[in-house]
Amino acid sequence: MTGAITDRAVDDSARETAITQWLADFERALRARNIDAAAAMFVDDCYWRDLVAFTWNIITIEGPEGVRKMLAQTLDQVQPTGFAVAEELGAAAADTESWIKFETSVGRGIGHLRLRDGKAWTLLTTLNDLKGHEEPEHDRRPIGTEHGAVPNRKTWLEQRRREAEELGHATQPYVVIVGGGQGGIALGARLRQLGVPTIIVDRNPRPGDAWRKRYKSLTLHDPVWYDHLPYIDFPPNWPVFSPKDKIADWLEMYTRVMELNYWDSTECKRATYDEAAKEWTVVVERGGVEMTLRPKQLVLATGMSGKPSMPDIEGMEVFTGDQHHSSQHPGPDAYRGKKAVVIGSNNSAHDICAALWEVGADVTMVQRSSTHVARSDSLMELGLGSLYSESAVASGMTTQKADLTFASIPYRLLHVFQIPVYDAIRERDADFYARLEKAGFMLDFGDDNSGLFMKYLRRGSGYYIDVGASELVANGDIKLEPGVDVVRLTENAVVLSNGKTLPADLVVYATGYGSMNGWAADLISPGVAAKVGKCWGLGSGTSKDPGPWEGELRNMWKPTQQAALWFHGGNLHQSRHYSLYLALQLKARMEGIPTPVYGLQEVHHLS
Amino acid sequence: MTGAITDRAVDDSARETAITQWLADFERALRARNIDAAAAMFVDDCYWRDLVAFTWNIITIEGPEGVRKMLAQTLDQVQPTGFAVAEELGAAAADTESWIKFETSVGRGIGHLRLRDGKAWTLLTTLNDLKGHEEPEHDRRPIGTEHGAVPNRKTWLEQRRREAEELGHATQPYVVIVGGGQGGIALGARLRQLGVPTIIVDRNPRPGDAWRKRYKSLTLHDPVWYDHLPYIDFPPNWPVFSPKDKIADWLEMYTRVMELNYWDSTECKRATYDEAAKEWTVVVERGGVEMTLRPKQLVLATGMSGKPSMPDIEGMEVFTGDQHHSSQHPGPDAYRGKKAVVIGSNNSAHDICAALWEVGADVTMVQRSSTHVARSDSLMELGLGSLYSESAVASGMTTQKADLTFASIPYRLLHVFQIPVYDAIRERDADFYARLEKAGFMLDFGDDNSGLFMKYLRRGSGYYIDVGASELVANGDIKLEPGVDVVRLTENAVVLSNGKTLPADLVVYATGYGSMNGWAADLISPGVAAKVGKCWGLGSGTSKDPGPWEGELRNMWKPTQQAALWFHGGNLHQSRHYSLYLALQLKARMEGIPTPVYGLQEVHHLS
Repeated sequence: MTGAITDRAVDDSARETAITQWLADFERALRARNIDAAAAMFVDDCYWRDLVAFTWNIITIEGPEGVRKMLAQTLDQVQPTGFAVAEELGAAAADTESWIKFETSVGRGIGHLRLRDGKAWTLLTTLNDLKGHEEPEHDRRPIGTEHGAVPNRKTWLEQRRREAEELGHATQPYVVIVGGGQGGIALGARLRQLGVPTIIVDRNPRPGDAWRKRYKSLTLHDPVWYDHLPYIDFPPNWPVFSPKDKIADWLEMYTRVMELNYWDSTECKRATYDEAAKEWTVVVERGGVEMTLRPKQLVLATGMSGKPSMPDIEGMEVFTGDQHHSSQHPGPDAYRGKKAVVIGSNNSAHDICAALWEVGADVTMVQRSSTHVARSDSLMELGLGSLYSESAVASGMTTQKADLTFASIPYRLLHVFQIPVYDAIRERDADFYARLEKAGFMLDFGDDNSGLFMKYLRRGSGYYIDVGASELVANGDIKLEPGVDVVRLTENAVVLSNGKTLPADLVVYATGYGSMNGWAADLISPGVAAKVGKCWGLGSGTSKDPGPWEGELRNMWKPTQQAALWFHGGNLHQSRHYSLYLALQLKARMEGIPTPVYGLQEVHHLS
Repeated sequence: MTGAITDRAVDDSARETAITQWLADFERALRARNIDAAAAMFVDDCYWRDLVAFTWNIITIEGPEGVRKMLAQTLDQVQPTGFAVAEELGAAAADTESWIKFETSVGRGIGHLRLRDGKAWTLLTTLNDLKGHEEPEHDRRPIGTEHGAVPNRKTWLEQRRREAEELGHATQPYVVIVGGGQGGIALGARLRQLGVPTIIVDRNPRPGDAWRKRYKSLTLHDPVWYDHLPYIDFPPNWPVFSPKDKIADWLEMYTRVMELNYWDSTECKRATYDEAAKEWTVVVERGGVEMTLRPKQLVLATGMSGKPSMPDIEGMEVFTGDQHHSSQHPGPDAYRGKKAVVIGSNNSAHDICAALWEVGADVTMVQRSSTHVARSDSLMELGLGSLYSESAVASGMTTQKADLTFASIPYRLLHVFQIPVYDAIRERDADFYARLEKAGFMLDFGDDNSGLFMKYLRRGSGYYIDVGASELVANGDIKLEPGVDVVRLTENAVVLSNGKTLPADLVVYATGYGSMNGWAADLISPGVAAKVGKCWGLGSGTSKDPGPWEGELRNMWKPTQQAALWFHGGNLHQSRHYSLYLALQLKARMEGIPTPVYGLQEVHHLS
């Protein structure tokens, strides 16, 4: 026992020596504005990922020359100091890496450093708070009542009601968030804590309805440890996979207790930006009445998978059965004993096929192209287990550390870390995959065998997290038509490119979603959508993610080519983590803190 | 550094030696059923506090002879084993004490041991879970979806709706809880996790209304760290003192996400127990319709301060102004510029006086007897700081450990620990107290100078946690009439025993609350109320807490003289902590686990 403690102490101090030495040297070079010396402290194939701390951007710098250029342009403004090991985050995973902290002229940052041969291989820098604008939590939490005697005191309820009545009428919000799903809600919560007046508008009657209205068998495909919102964790009895109506209730309650100004039953009709006044005109319809909001910043949080892509197929207009996009599918109850054709083979397609089969429908899945499948158990254990699991929590992993660990791996390298995971999954589930392929299912693991998460980042599609449907495909309960396309619909059938005609009472188009800048086209203008360009994707040059390499998700949570227009979205993990950086960017602008953006992304693709 | 580690290791092992030796010896004696040897391991003035683990009761055993008697009657049933230091709870506060764990024939327990001269001075044993009936949390949390293909699957929403529709109609709850405040809600949450079918009935339209309907300036007087409910902590930005409407929203949210079967707008009319069938008949009125529930167990959670005591004063019927009990007081808004007389000098009286003064009312407080006052800041720092504060949390204190630490001090000794705290408060706030007494305020610190918390436990009254009103009393803004009583009311005034006549537009009776068994009288019968006797209080022989000494709060969270009738109440801390033991008692009975009660309390007082 004592021996072990001593050993660890030695390791710690060895690591600290290398890390603290690097940090001290780095700070000395930066203070001296010796940019060449600083850049020379990075290995040739280095990556410096910055989340808003140095660049007021979300960007990954590559190579010492990239570092040199960035520092040359940012250093006088950022004035970084106080680089040190962040003891409060505990030990890092290996001897050559460490949690770090630092300060800038305007804020405090935390980050992560990996050394190789004494030089920086990967560096993560993130802005954690703004000096003088810290969130009122823990020892800064509000007192809740004003002690003493306060003539004509306003109670919490009176103040809250007055704010709700005045905001958007007598006073204008600084930010309008369009879309009140998990993304808009998480961002709204952070902005409230930062004191940024914000209105979230959502067309549905209640927070959570975006989940409630989906097909009834839907549960989250990500496990609970990955899904916490900021500030309030799910309780320890929360299901591993939240049923859709349960997560909806949670979002509704969260919206209330976090005191968000959430305008339900409100549709955003159009928005225009006045470049001179630096102000948006946002027309919304609330309770049947059109009204105008004039925020300084506009965030589209309408869902990274929010804009349905409907195919245009000959004969759709003559088909007499039910047909709808998967996002509109109500669930199986009306289709007992009916014939259903589901076009597509990603998550929704599988979920919907399985639910239809469970009520006794005759179901065919039309698989147009190859699809990646990973079993949920295997993903949880091999993919997420070390960061997001009960055992990770038990061994001291926090959500913050897990998020930052994940963020510390540059996207350029992420597939290298992912490939062995999926190799292991493929081996572990070899029988499963064999059965699936024997049934004709066209299986892939991504262009470079890096699996599900890279597909999610690169193209946001092309996979199914198996929770049971694959077994039905393998055993033929769900009929499969692989490698075909739909040629046309008739009055009562779907005609395929292989010549087959499938009688159908129901056709579900599980055909995915378009880029979020489509929302900008609808709400603002096609011109602004084109100016901003495609959202999501990394430019990896793999299927549906054309190059050039961009290094970060396009347009997400960071400045776009359209001033004062922002995109927020993604899964619960991303909504939680990246809402922090978007909120800090918005807060800084509200407070008039200079936010010079380094490396504003260029537009290479329109959608 | 290494030196410090080594030192601590030595201390730890020294402690562990004494503690583990005691535990090993104790277990050996118990296994051998050598009760005399076991009793001899306690010092003469020992206390063994058991929360349901050994006695199926909440009881404090005193002295070795008490230990001997209790073991003689319980040991064969309890079969305790596995006594060990509970490493998972960390280090205890001193070398002579330790967190412990053990098992019984039916469950697992945790506790706390303080040694003196190698013998047990205080021992706390608590039942933590029932074997085979562990709560589904952490690595036992529900999966949330049934993976695989399940013909005619029912979704979470369908199952939840069916349960809500059937419970109380097609199926009967095992438990009915009357009263849906913090107590009923916390207990309901635990029972749900334990799989005990439960209905909470509350007359108000929404969970939290018991708070919403109180006077508008009300905030919790206890700080946030003391107030967490089970399972979901308040977030780090929650105010130190929750405004009443904010805590109400939290309770409403909590009720929903914890999936409680909460019947709002439902009034419990009457209940009778069928001793032969061992079943209650509970008549409730829901939506204007009377219906009957037939639970096996009935819990009154109607509020330890739920049953208003209205005085009977000559002339009340001729008074033409507004008059109401403090529990009915709406707040000051209707009384700007009016004359108000508040009868009483405890928390509500002070809060109401201050709020009336703040809107410009002319306010007089009628102080009938001496009152303890402690400033909120001083209480937080000196009274609660070591267990319930931001700094306690920062230094590793958890809510569970704080609750158990508090529970580990026997009530017989608690005043000894409390007196120095209030000595320090008195010294720190000497100027404040001097000003208050100079204004004529009759101040006390309890019969034995043990201060506020002992008054709360002994009599549930007699104090004010100062958040500002005392300054108004001291400077005369709130007029004070000390040491007098109300003789009668006239049409427009209050006549005092000192001969003064106070003109009044409003009279507030801040005259406190009756014992909870008054609810049993109203809902069941005066006979059952008398059979059960007074609730709350310790029998300390101090003012309003007549002896004999009973050692625990009367009738709270434990078996009463009426089979299948239970009382649950108290502040948020108590609702959180003791709901665990009440829930385990109810669960054990539902599962048919033998629950022989040792030391069922006798009735010494009727109310």
